[in-house]
Amino acid sequence: MARIGIVGSEGRMGHALAQAIEASGHDVAGGVDRGHGDIAQLAAKSDALVDFSSPLALQATLDSAIAAGIPVLIGTTGLEAEQHAAIDRAANRIAVLQTGNTSLGVTMLAHLVREAAARLGDDWDIEIVEMHHRMKVDAPSGTALLLGEAAAQGRGIDLAGHSERGRDGITGKRADGAIGFASLRGGTVAGEHTVYFAGPEERIAMTHLAENRMIFARGAVKGLGWLIGKAPGRYTMPQVLGL
Amino acid sequence: MARIGIVGSEGRMGHALAQAIEASGHDVAGGVDRGHGDIAQLAAKSDALVDFSSPLALQATLDSAIAAGIPVLIGTTGLEAEQHAAIDRAANRIAVLQTGNTSLGVTMLAHLVREAAARLGDDWDIEIVEMHHRMKVDAPSGTALLLGEAAAQGRGIDLAGHSERGRDGITGKRADGAIGFASLRGGTVAGEHTVYFAGPEERIAMTHLAENRMIFARGAVKGLGWLIGKAPGRYTMPQVLGL
Amino acid sequence: MARIGIVGSEGRMGHALAQAIEASGHDVAGGVDRGHGDIAQLAAKSDALVDFSSPLALQATLDSAIAAGIPVLIGTTGLEAEQHAAIDRAANRIAVLQTGNTSLGVTMLAHLVREAAARLGDDWDIEIVEMHHRMKVDAPSGTALLLGEAAAQGRGIDLAGHSERGRDGITGKRADGAIGFASLRGGTVAGEHTVYFAGPEERIAMTHLAENRMIFARGAVKGLGWLIGKAPGRYTMPQVLGL
Amino acid sequence: MARIGIVGSEGRMGHALAQAIEASGHDVAGGVDRGHGDIAQLAAKSDALVDFSSPLALQATLDSAIAAGIPVLIGTTGLEAEQHAAIDRAANRIAVLQTGNTSLGVTMLAHLVREAAARLGDDWDIEIVEMHHRMKVDAPSGTALLLGEAAAQGRGIDLAGHSERGRDGITGKRADGAIGFASLRGGTVAGEHTVYFAGPEERIAMTHLAENRMIFARGAVKGLGWLIGKAPGRYTMPQVLGL
Repeated sequence: MARIGIVGSEGRMGHALAQAIEASGHDVAGGVDRGHGDIAQLAAKSDALVDFSSPLALQATLDSAIAAGIPVLIGTTGLEAEQHAAIDRAANRIAVLQTGNTSLGVTMLAHLVREAAARLGDDWDIEIVEMHHRMKVDAPSGTALLLGEAAAQGRGIDLAGHSERGRDGITGKRADGAIGFASLRGGTVAGEHTVYFAGPEERIAMTHLAENRMIFARGAVKGLGWLIGKAPGRYTMPQVLGL
Repeated sequence: MARIGIVGSEGRMGHALAQAIEASGHDVAGGVDRGHGDIAQLAAKSDALVDFSSPLALQATLDSAIAAGIPVLIGTTGLEAEQHAAIDRAANRIAVLQTGNTSLGVTMLAHLVREAAARLGDDWDIEIVEMHHRMKVDAPSGTALLLGEAAAQGRGIDLAGHSERGRDGITGKRADGAIGFASLRGGTVAGEHTVYFAGPEERIAMTHLAENRMIFARGAVKGLGWLIGKAPGRYTMPQVLGL
Repeated sequence: MARIGIVGSEGRMGHALAQAIEASGHDVAGGVDRGHGDIAQLAAKSDALVDFSSPLALQATLDSAIAAGIPVLIGTTGLEAEQHAAIDRAANRIAVLQTGNTSLGVTMLAHLVREAAARLGDDWDIEIVEMHHRMKVDAPSGTALLLGEAAAQGRGIDLAGHSERGRDGITGKRADGAIGFASLRGGTVAGEHTVYFAGPEERIAMTHLAENRMIFARGAVKGLGWLIGKAPGRYTMPQVLGL
Repeated sequence: MARIGIVGSEGRMGHALAQAIEASGHDVAGGVDRGHGDIAQLAAKSDALVDFSSPLALQATLDSAIAAGIPVLIGTTGLEAEQHAAIDRAANRIAVLQTGNTSLGVTMLAHLVREAAARLGDDWDIEIVEMHHRMKVDAPSGTALLLGEAAAQGRGIDLAGHSERGRDGITGKRADGAIGFASLRGGTVAGEHTVYFAGPEERIAMTHLAENRMIFARGAVKGLGWLIGKAPGRYTMPQVLGL
């Protein structure tokens, strides 16, 4: 039973985190949002902090966690090199888990994709297709790229140099060893990702379906529970699942 | 029980046609291929001709069928406007069925897609994804475009003006009323097509899976059986299924 | 802009209906639930009633709608013959829409399944598989049976006499003309149904995915908007979509 | 480059093996089938034997391989305890690989399923659904049971005591920790298996699609190439893939 402080408590993800914290039996220590509330005071009465808010809030979150001597989970996206450096420095003092996707299912899928890519030969072509709601503005999704990275690691290749994206027109035959990406958009789909391994006359397809965004909050809470009591250091979601 | 003459009898599709003709209880009247064999003689001993060979063979096929007074099924792809005009002229004299896809399943799927697109409102986004073997050089597949055309007809819109193809990078949100296309390539996949209708919090997905290329030969033979005895005119696969 | 009265306003479906009514621009006239509130008074200030509550409430709902001269949508499941007779009698006086599934997507899918079953020959085997959350106590789902009924109608056969359910062990080969059913249970799946047409070397699969239960409320509200102003009679969801 | 002798050379699988052996660059040393041909003579001129024929042929195959001092791959299904004992005895003298499924894709999928089942908690429900052609007489398929066994091993439970098969009627809610099975039959489907892990508001689905039966022959030939030169012992397909 831990007290968890939420940085960015008023956004959609902040509300989902509060709901997931209470459903898990932990307590919400309180929240701060864009200048409302004092993050140092919040840290002082928390056993851990969670921050999905914005790169702008990152340094204050890290400083307050260090001052209070408590761990922190960073789910913020769009971090730059200098922010990663700040996380590395903080990780000398406290336990920090930073990740682009807190879903347990996606974390597991990435692990399985890495394993399959490492074991199956080059005659198994890798393709990744994702579907998201009609309002999404970028393609492929960050999670599709995370899965592509897992496949590339399994193969021991560089993703950037082996991606086939946005096929259209006379493309010529598929490049040997390529990892293909395709994106579908429509309706209100929360997120669906499939990784194909297409071999000679057989195929393996591995799919993750998100029913809604609560899975990200729930995975974050599981990560926080695991993080409390850990030695200083920088941790990842696969470690939470023991992968 | 009809005697069917095969134009292009030595290619992969010619062999599949011969196999399908015999399996259906009809007879192969004979075959010609790239100058080997006399097409007029073949027509004289056939009840119908089938031609999946090449636009170059088209005029001779039509002339021979007219001379013999027998129907013809044209499955050749890559026809230009002048070849379509030649087919129209022939259709004044004999029954001609020209199509880009003879599969019964694809013909049915296109019908269902047209129906769904006509009935579901504009808040149901249409997306088409296809997967083919690693050697295919163009994207999207001709069948994906045929399905997109069916969707556009159902909606009463022009496909060319409403397509979203090859999404990659910062695309912005989905255009209202768009029909999206995505292409996967890998392994030895004979052909798999899915049309999504993605509405508010629910989705319909309609998929066609081809196990191998025999389905195109089998559908052609069904079309030929239907065509024999028909009055002169230009016919389509949906008519074969009574759609 | 209509005023809609909710019978069973305190249940999960009652809350979803209230939310869908407001989102659609209509107004909630009020609600009654298990003896709380007067249904005749509710009907007097409503333009239509909606009842997803219980067969026990049915007669009072119908009587109040008749007294007020307003239409009613009945989404209650588990109706017996006598309740259907009561609906038929009411339909002489007011417009009544009774249905086991108000989802627009499922209504459309049933239509497409009926059409495909009517057109494709007996060498296309029909199989229906559904997946629902771990708490569901019956199999197959009511919606799977509704889809099976649509397939049977398309084929012109009797569903009860042609069903293959719960395959396990040495089953022998598939019966000619059978319609197969299979049920998966797990997690929190709101409802996923696939109807296969498996022909010689090709397949069509038609899937409906529900993201959550709001689609039933939203479909009901669309049905109510369509029902207001209709002549007395008994109506169905396919009519709402113009099928 | 090895010479491989085929026991059961005249059946459908025998022909597929001959084709796969030649495609892989190995040589067919010869074949025997139901008393036609001398298996000892065949073994004497082979570098390895392969037997997909029948439990009745097993002892002669093992004896001949031992006499010739060559390895053997047994793909026969329906083996009883005494036949497994005979294989164990032979494995003291020569290298023997016995398996119920030689597909590389299925072998990999079973590995991934075991891994996922071991790592994901009990709130992820496991369901297995398979589809095969209309002539198949048993359900679930042997491969579905093999995948169920992999899941049970991952969970550390006994499959027989945790299976839910053939759901139909009022089943009650899903048993905690169950592994569910469902079977679809229709058309000419060569074999399609999906294993679901259905968690709270998210799902992982892992599918294997076989385009045709050649994959079993090709996997067997890969297994034979791996087996030649191995020390006496009993081996499995996962070892061939280094799993």
